[in-house]
Amino acid sequence: MTEYDSNKGATAAMKKERIDRIMAELGKMGLSQMLVTDPMSICYLTGVYQEPFERFYGLLLKVNGEHVFFLNRLFNVPQELPLTKVWYEDTDPVPEILERYTDHDTPLGVDKDLKARFLLPLIEKKAAAGFVNASIAIDFARGIKDAEEQVKMREASRINDEAMAVFKTLVHEGVTEKEIADQMLNIYRDLGAEGYSFEPLVAFGKNAADPHHSPDDTVIQPGDCVLFDVGCKKDGYCSDMTRTFYFKSVSDEAKKIYELTRKANEEAEKKVRPGIPLCELDNTARSIIAKEGYGEFFNHRLGHFIGLAEHEYGDVSSANTTPAQPGMIFSIEPGIYLAGNTGVRVEDLVLVTKEGAEILNHYPKELQIIG
Amino acid sequence: MTEYDSNKGATAAMKKERIDRIMAELGKMGLSQMLVTDPMSICYLTGVYQEPFERFYGLLLKVNGEHVFFLNRLFNVPQELPLTKVWYEDTDPVPEILERYTDHDTPLGVDKDLKARFLLPLIEKKAAAGFVNASIAIDFARGIKDAEEQVKMREASRINDEAMAVFKTLVHEGVTEKEIADQMLNIYRDLGAEGYSFEPLVAFGKNAADPHHSPDDTVIQPGDCVLFDVGCKKDGYCSDMTRTFYFKSVSDEAKKIYELTRKANEEAEKKVRPGIPLCELDNTARSIIAKEGYGEFFNHRLGHFIGLAEHEYGDVSSANTTPAQPGMIFSIEPGIYLAGNTGVRVEDLVLVTKEGAEILNHYPKELQIIG
Repeated sequence: MTEYDSNKGATAAMKKERIDRIMAELGKMGLSQMLVTDPMSICYLTGVYQEPFERFYGLLLKVNGEHVFFLNRLFNVPQELPLTKVWYEDTDPVPEILERYTDHDTPLGVDKDLKARFLLPLIEKKAAAGFVNASIAIDFARGIKDAEEQVKMREASRINDEAMAVFKTLVHEGVTEKEIADQMLNIYRDLGAEGYSFEPLVAFGKNAADPHHSPDDTVIQPGDCVLFDVGCKKDGYCSDMTRTFYFKSVSDEAKKIYELTRKANEEAEKKVRPGIPLCELDNTARSIIAKEGYGEFFNHRLGHFIGLAEHEYGDVSSANTTPAQPGMIFSIEPGIYLAGNTGVRVEDLVLVTKEGAEILNHYPKELQIIG
Repeated sequence: MTEYDSNKGATAAMKKERIDRIMAELGKMGLSQMLVTDPMSICYLTGVYQEPFERFYGLLLKVNGEHVFFLNRLFNVPQELPLTKVWYEDTDPVPEILERYTDHDTPLGVDKDLKARFLLPLIEKKAAAGFVNASIAIDFARGIKDAEEQVKMREASRINDEAMAVFKTLVHEGVTEKEIADQMLNIYRDLGAEGYSFEPLVAFGKNAADPHHSPDDTVIQPGDCVLFDVGCKKDGYCSDMTRTFYFKSVSDEAKKIYELTRKANEEAEKKVRPGIPLCELDNTARSIIAKEGYGEFFNHRLGHFIGLAEHEYGDVSSANTTPAQPGMIFSIEPGIYLAGNTGVRVEDLVLVTKEGAEILNHYPKELQIIG
């Protein structure tokens, strides 16, 4: 992870810009202070990632720029980080320390996931003139990726493309889903990723139609679809792609729903441009599938936002009328699931650009019979 | 997971007994209702484990026995579970649903980790006459394992013993920490475990002295210590054991600190019996190590409680004067860490019994030179 330094270079300036965007959103909500506790959001603002487990970890943002970083002595955070740092020990009373820095006379924004064991004492101590779930201010900022983030997202998806080519070669007579899934972490690491962005989904045949399926001891059979929904992390950012292959042969119906899903994916991707309501993308894919009578078998939203976390605030669904904006990155992942039979999903990540869109995945989408 | 059914058999009766113990603790705190949201605690009370991710998942306990289980339609929970179930959809307003069932005229206990996005609206709606972090009531109950839990903890540690014997055979010339760690999950699964209770720690040589070390590409060298701190889950319950081996040879100093650590482990374990203050166990181990001049190199508490979670409320430290009680299960894990040189830790899980103690791990502790 890079370090946050408001005095040096482009990276630091960019993170200042991230803080400025959040402060502007908070201002619209009538807030001049916010306690950020989501480790991903703190990483977004400081460049430092720390997993606090049970311990308190927070960044108090203040409109006057006098931000305060609350850290347990056991955390590994660069000493040179140019923020006011307040170090506490395991035996220290965290809420008492926090309230020394909050403005008691104005409301405090808090993260949606702030835990009761910290929030209740802050309320009791009247550490602020009211407490507001203000996560949306950060969600909005994180929903628009800046240049530095776009580079990292592109790289994570580039590795994912390379990994998919390797995963395909793992499919052979007699192999089980679990045997393939268990090899994926090392493949990602060998390609330079830090690890998974989520546990890989490997599903053969009818398992691909089960949304709750985890890779198990199912042995591959000729004619099975092979669905890989996989992603890795690189420099903290996530990739996420799905491809569906066929082992030895493909039935007419499987071929039909594959091509339909692929078309839904490609037509929706073609429509991505600034200003288009996200629901219109969902509608494009859904109509293509519904027109052929498979509408009821595409039973989830078209996509989700992604970045430092695999699922971030924002989705591509029939309910979301938000217009696409440059810097948004989301998945386009239509699917058709025939319970007890077969399933197919084709998924890429897409970046909205000034002119239109950049598809972050380049692994081919033509139907492939393998093995 | 077994199901909760207050009308049938011993298992069900036991879970009723768990609820009764918690209601008794709540009563001491002046509470007649509590909203439990920790999935582990809900599993403890119902036998059902559900990972809710972003969604709300809660069990409202009431002193009159009219408990209510709040469930998202997408959750997989047995329909026959004999509890009042309130199903909601993703688009439903959760806090509004919750406040229909809470008693507005008395305080509500909440879990320490209840998130601000649920807690703040409940406060705003005055869903109760005050909100209290009441997790300790559940922590106390979970800290004393009943017969069913003891059987599961014993089994998880039995598998861990077997796994340790296999892990030892993975050590050979040229191997890296990561190569060994990457094989462990399959070994646990082959032995019947569900998975890890925590990411395994594999550390060679000086890496064993670094508390933040993760298995990496370090290649083993003759004379290195080989520290395995590992655990698996079986039927939802965790194991956790550490053994330290030596590759090809052992230096005089390494041998000395090994035997000292082993002695500290064994002498502390011998003292475990109902009524002994937990700090006395820590003191026993620490004195043995300090007497030989290594006190400053044993820089953590002696142990932690464990059960459904790898770390549960309660520890074996110099500050904890709580007397041991039958049913408590905790680790005894003294260590000596010589930075930049070598490290050693010897850890077992121990169950306090009516008569004394049962050590749940049986893998030998004699110094072993391997490879």
